[in-house]
Amino acid sequence: MAASGSKSGRMSETIFDKILSGELPCHKLYEDPHVLSFLDIAPLAYGHTLVIPKERARTLDLLSDESSAAIGRALPRLCRALKKLTGVSAFNVLENNESSAHQAVFHVHFHIIPKPDEHSGLGLLWKPGRLDPARAAALCAGVAKELAG
Amino acid sequence: MAASGSKSGRMSETIFDKILSGELPCHKLYEDPHVLSFLDIAPLAYGHTLVIPKERARTLDLLSDESSAAIGRALPRLCRALKKLTGVSAFNVLENNESSAHQAVFHVHFHIIPKPDEHSGLGLLWKPGRLDPARAAALCAGVAKELAG
Repeated sequence: MAASGSKSGRMSETIFDKILSGELPCHKLYEDPHVLSFLDIAPLAYGHTLVIPKERARTLDLLSDESSAAIGRALPRLCRALKKLTGVSAFNVLENNESSAHQAVFHVHFHIIPKPDEHSGLGLLWKPGRLDPARAAALCAGVAKELAG
Repeated sequence: MAASGSKSGRMSETIFDKILSGELPCHKLYEDPHVLSFLDIAPLAYGHTLVIPKERARTLDLLSDESSAAIGRALPRLCRALKKLTGVSAFNVLENNESSAHQAVFHVHFHIIPKPDEHSGLGLLWKPGRLDPARAAALCAGVAKELAG
């Protein structure tokens, strides 16, 4: 779907740029200075919604704190409204990064996907493993160092 | 896993309360006044991380704007650190609400799940439909009314 960005911080134009500029229409649900939300045109269930930053960022790790906080702030409000309007109380919030993790448009987007029954909405395959204590400790130390630096 | 909350706003104690109080240990990655992040003990892939609000809320629609914004702010930083430490650039961010949408602990939690290859990490089943213009327009009007009210 649309042009894909490069793997670097710079990204090509995507279909979301055209929606943000008004060049392409959308079924808009919500907008604030940092965020736009609209219906997915290929929904997994009725009410399948996208929430995107106006800031251009290919993947979530490249998004500014400010834009990501604004999306965070918008999510509960949108979830409340969608729950009420669709009548569906179960739902998944999903954000995919890179093609191999199912990203199709290379501009950050959060999906809100109602789960009305087991046959529609998002399907998840969950094959948990075990946490290795030594690797876990090493990862914790590494992440703490990254976040402090 | 652990006690489940009621469907009302009030919720029972979960295993995350015990982690937040320090009664149970965790592999902590990050903490701020609103957020705690630690490794999932049943990982779908190395580096599978949970990000939770300190505020007790069963599902995302019940979470305060402030806590949700704080989670939003923390996500890109954690994703950057995890990408660097695991060496995996593809990943999924997922938040499940209610049992039928795969929620297992009834306290809001965002998963960050590295996707190192097609056999590990999160598996997604994606069966898109079509957006009905009339239903879409009705939903947009309804959500706009909710969010304005």
